[in-house]
Amino acid sequence: MRATLLATALLALLTCDLHATEGAVPPKRKSAQEIIDAAPASAWRELDPDNTLYMELPAGRVVIELAPTFAPEHVANIRALARGRFWDGLSIYRAQDNFVVQFGDPDADDPAKAKPFPPGARPHLPAEFTRSDQGVRFDRLPDVDGWAPQVGFVDGFPAARDPNTGKVWLAHCYGMVGAGRNTPPDSSTGAELYVVIGQAPRALDHQLTVVGRVVQGMELLSTIPRGPAPMGFYTDPAQRTPITSIRLARDVPEAQRTRLQLLRTDSQAFIDATEARRNRVDDFYTQPAGHIDLCNVPLPVRTLPAGK
Amino acid sequence: MRATLLATALLALLTCDLHATEGAVPPKRKSAQEIIDAAPASAWRELDPDNTLYMELPAGRVVIELAPTFAPEHVANIRALARGRFWDGLSIYRAQDNFVVQFGDPDADDPAKAKPFPPGARPHLPAEFTRSDQGVRFDRLPDVDGWAPQVGFVDGFPAARDPNTGKVWLAHCYGMVGAGRNTPPDSSTGAELYVVIGQAPRALDHQLTVVGRVVQGMELLSTIPRGPAPMGFYTDPAQRTPITSIRLARDVPEAQRTRLQLLRTDSQAFIDATEARRNRVDDFYTQPAGHIDLCNVPLPVRTLPAGK
Repeated sequence: MRATLLATALLALLTCDLHATEGAVPPKRKSAQEIIDAAPASAWRELDPDNTLYMELPAGRVVIELAPTFAPEHVANIRALARGRFWDGLSIYRAQDNFVVQFGDPDADDPAKAKPFPPGARPHLPAEFTRSDQGVRFDRLPDVDGWAPQVGFVDGFPAARDPNTGKVWLAHCYGMVGAGRNTPPDSSTGAELYVVIGQAPRALDHQLTVVGRVVQGMELLSTIPRGPAPMGFYTDPAQRTPITSIRLARDVPEAQRTRLQLLRTDSQAFIDATEARRNRVDDFYTQPAGHIDLCNVPLPVRTLPAGK
Repeated sequence: MRATLLATALLALLTCDLHATEGAVPPKRKSAQEIIDAAPASAWRELDPDNTLYMELPAGRVVIELAPTFAPEHVANIRALARGRFWDGLSIYRAQDNFVVQFGDPDADDPAKAKPFPPGARPHLPAEFTRSDQGVRFDRLPDVDGWAPQVGFVDGFPAARDPNTGKVWLAHCYGMVGAGRNTPPDSSTGAELYVVIGQAPRALDHQLTVVGRVVQGMELLSTIPRGPAPMGFYTDPAQRTPITSIRLARDVPEAQRTRLQLLRTDSQAFIDATEARRNRVDDFYTQPAGHIDLCNVPLPVRTLPAGK
């Protein structure tokens, strides 16, 4: 029995990392940033100009990635609205602290004053709150979530899935963009859009159509002065933030486009970086969390290296 | 078999609510706001002036409630710093989007330039990351949480508890105030404070000393322009937001105090309002969430009725 134990111990010694027998410290685990910095080019993707909006504000540009996988009808309408310059001269007319900013036509609900839609934009769309999970690659997080049976990522967007219903939907995390609506579920058109600027209001999940997320310029929206009226509306129209224009990247000359790359959420680098955040390795943390919330997972974005 | 089914059906009819047999609609469940509006005076508490800070910014007053139950040494030091006017003329020197703003002395780490502490303020404190749950009333939420075994409220603050370790700690929700530190766990003094302005960074829980939360004026902090340097620091000191003063409410003349009431988190109204948010009753929601996250539970604050 002793001989067997000894043989096993020797075998273990022979197969383990030689550094251990030399008394060296184990190699330091990489931080999330180190993993991202070392990610191969194949781990990054570029924005599709047909699915990218540029919202021009006096303070700068906000870049939004659209999610046609989840909201094809809304995305098509948003493209038509942008092409028809619907939002130019309209405003961000609502900013509610720890919740959302909302933009579009503040008179949308008043038929006498509402700005007419341009040709090609439809006044009525179906609700696109959820979709079938058939054929949708879902990169699942192992972490528990209180709002949905499963959470993870689809096409780079935070998402949730219910295997019992076979449905998948986008999650209302910070920076996500949704289509405002009235009480009827099919009353959104994509003309009135909100952006989450606070703690993820996940109670809105699968209750509204989520159309995309802000990938650059969030700080231009999150710092907008909050409206003093209920729900963050402004009491004086002069308090609204004017929208210079909203354009589809496809319709902007290439030299004026913002060249961004996003880390693929199905890449090994993304999986490894998320694990490095779930169990932090730096000295600051006294105890690893062993968990990460869907809406705490950063979705890395970088400016395309020059000359690429 | 048919007779049994009929008998069962008749029994069900006899035991059900009579209203149903009269064709009336069931009484409408109250919304969270209706429950809060109907809460008795006993469900509200006033801020203790010894545990209340007024941070005066050019844009207005931020009111912070301190949490001596969790961080007695830090709270005592913060009182001494406020009494010694330590923060007057200092600044908010960091604003990182979707994370924190931080204020105090930007030169705190430079012994040659650091502002000296006033008499009574200590340069070294123990870490107060967690405390024993002995004698602490913990109003637990039934909802699952990924970061902690149990979540709920203590003294009106969002908190978490681990029955295995017998520890309880404050949660890093939106608006919570914590003491910045360097790598050593006991390197915070309460002089450098941060406020959460984004998705709850719960990975910081029980890694830092949480000293309280903002109960009024969050929008003055959340809209501060973000710093362009790493971690939200400013590149130009002129970009910092100056702090006019920070005072303990006790040291402010009564006429100049902000009279606020907070809904007790151990009141029936709070429990009922939280349930009404967990399962929304308004027509807008197509499907109740059946869940609420600790950091999504609003902590109602109201201005004291006139003459009270």
